[in-house]
Amino acid sequence: MTSARPDVTERDREQEALDKIDLVRARAPRFRDERITMAHGAGGKATSTLVQGLFVPAFDNDILSRLDDAGVVEIGVSRLAMTTDSFVVRPLVFPGGSIGDLAVNGTVNDLAVVGARPIALTLAMVLEEGLSSEILRREVEAIARAARNAGVSIIAGDTKVVERGHADGMYICTTGLGRVDERATLSPRCLQPGDRVLVSGSIGDHGTAIMLARGEFELEAEIVSDTRSLWPVVDVLLEAAGPHLRCMRDATRGGVASVLNELAVASGVAVLVNERAIPIHPNVAGACEILGIDPMYVANEGKLVAIVAPEAADRALDAIRGIPGCEDAADIGEVRTEPRSMVLVQTAFGGRRVMDLLVGDPLPRIC
Amino acid sequence: MTSARPDVTERDREQEALDKIDLVRARAPRFRDERITMAHGAGGKATSTLVQGLFVPAFDNDILSRLDDAGVVEIGVSRLAMTTDSFVVRPLVFPGGSIGDLAVNGTVNDLAVVGARPIALTLAMVLEEGLSSEILRREVEAIARAARNAGVSIIAGDTKVVERGHADGMYICTTGLGRVDERATLSPRCLQPGDRVLVSGSIGDHGTAIMLARGEFELEAEIVSDTRSLWPVVDVLLEAAGPHLRCMRDATRGGVASVLNELAVASGVAVLVNERAIPIHPNVAGACEILGIDPMYVANEGKLVAIVAPEAADRALDAIRGIPGCEDAADIGEVRTEPRSMVLVQTAFGGRRVMDLLVGDPLPRIC
Repeated sequence: MTSARPDVTERDREQEALDKIDLVRARAPRFRDERITMAHGAGGKATSTLVQGLFVPAFDNDILSRLDDAGVVEIGVSRLAMTTDSFVVRPLVFPGGSIGDLAVNGTVNDLAVVGARPIALTLAMVLEEGLSSEILRREVEAIARAARNAGVSIIAGDTKVVERGHADGMYICTTGLGRVDERATLSPRCLQPGDRVLVSGSIGDHGTAIMLARGEFELEAEIVSDTRSLWPVVDVLLEAAGPHLRCMRDATRGGVASVLNELAVASGVAVLVNERAIPIHPNVAGACEILGIDPMYVANEGKLVAIVAPEAADRALDAIRGIPGCEDAADIGEVRTEPRSMVLVQTAFGGRRVMDLLVGDPLPRIC
Repeated sequence: MTSARPDVTERDREQEALDKIDLVRARAPRFRDERITMAHGAGGKATSTLVQGLFVPAFDNDILSRLDDAGVVEIGVSRLAMTTDSFVVRPLVFPGGSIGDLAVNGTVNDLAVVGARPIALTLAMVLEEGLSSEILRREVEAIARAARNAGVSIIAGDTKVVERGHADGMYICTTGLGRVDERATLSPRCLQPGDRVLVSGSIGDHGTAIMLARGEFELEAEIVSDTRSLWPVVDVLLEAAGPHLRCMRDATRGGVASVLNELAVASGVAVLVNERAIPIHPNVAGACEILGIDPMYVANEGKLVAIVAPEAADRALDAIRGIPGCEDAADIGEVRTEPRSMVLVQTAFGGRRVMDLLVGDPLPRIC
């Protein structure tokens, strides 16, 4: 496996070093770029700098500043979670799903990983003039089916149309409302040395499926997106681990590597990943190797990372594996004290290397 | 004033006649178009057919089927409203505001008119590769300022980037969460003969400002968008009229004419508008006359229509006029029994004409 860091210039490296210092010192990195690039949408370093350097200070509030997958507000006696996501995936349909499936599952999963049972979704579509009604109908049906599977209702919507050539058929924005489960006591800031790192199944499936579906590479393989609702996984994890469940994240843009980096920084700990333990389909591993991309940076749309206290880790892993489709869930590493705010990989050959935040965007428009 | 019905073909007229029969019989109009056109995003007849013929049956639930400006769910003892809107306005900046202002106020207003005090917003941005960071920063600041003015927090967000040539700089999707006020007993189905029709100020400002800002017409006039939060107006209306306040709608795409048509159909009543009573800035009236567009179909971004029982109408109007910027609020007509589900205009010359739903899209990308 090679590093997912194409097109890294000397200036990028300097900037990265400065930002890392900011992150470790818990200061907001400054947003200094003159123009928006594809990297700002990739979920890695540039996205993080844009969000923490521009959005968070401008909207200045404690809920957003937590940078969780969903914002939580207290209304009456309920704790409600709210999250939003735009979907701009190309192509609209791919093996294992379509933009409609992603739009429901992606948002449902952002609720689930903050411990919130999904209740309702809103749906805003930007359609391209000239779009075939059959394609629209197919996606509307995909959305309806995915919503039923996830147990949520679409309670409000909006439709806009833009001229030909402007929106690649359609962009979809879904926003989810969920109720935080009483069993959930989660925070990205509470990781402790000794905690175990679990993943709910094989990694890299979605991003690799999209990559091959674009047909830009002379490569064919049976790889399907893992798009699915993660609430059933979260439900059994909350039951099995209760207060020993420290934190969850769904590993979408930027992959498992980005999630682990964010958590390491948030808690000021190190994460050590055991490369041999990472579950990965042979077809995905093969495709990533040929394309020169590390699957740890590839987007998933139905996989979560859970950090669990050691005394509950085996119980939690058994619970995940009991969910159909999650038989490959695995314990892939542990939380350590040093080096603070960093993720290290113990390679199959016994060495160690740093697994940093993603720089650049090796694979745009993945979700 | 001329009718806002350009490019109406014979086929459109037949379709329209069929749909009207469906609407009056309270049947869902069928969505039969082969391709998406700009009209599907215009908030008139085609949008209504798309929503009621495709989305509502597919997502099949009682909350969405009400087709209110926001969906309302009960959680614990609270009634919560949720609404979503994409903003694709061109140009991004116009006299009186910008896409950032619209994105906050538009969503806040959809909550307000179902009687919900806005609490929180989420923000999803689709950015175009190459967008100047200064333009982004300016809009982020506009969003932050509008949110402060409206008393809401941005509690979650998402950023995607699409390649150059897509997304016209930026598209913004905001979703709002609000708590339904205990004084609100609103429904579009409860209009009764004798009820008064109020508007909270002069109409047609936003759409006309956008039209002139595009510079496609050899026309210059001092016209500024009316974008603003309507919660203060709703707050005093609820206080002044209480249970006598039947229903409110913010008159965005499709204008006041579309709102009145929707309400007439929902309640199975007629609405008679007194043309002389409609408040309109002379510059707006002049521009619309030159452009051949009826201002009743032009989008507003800070005006609501309120239907109030006659005994509370004067009190309600006084309350609205007490809000700064709403001094031009007016009583523009009344609810009648016949002809059912139709809107009529009493013209300045004493005649009457039908004011139907908008067909086609005289002014795309208005919000």
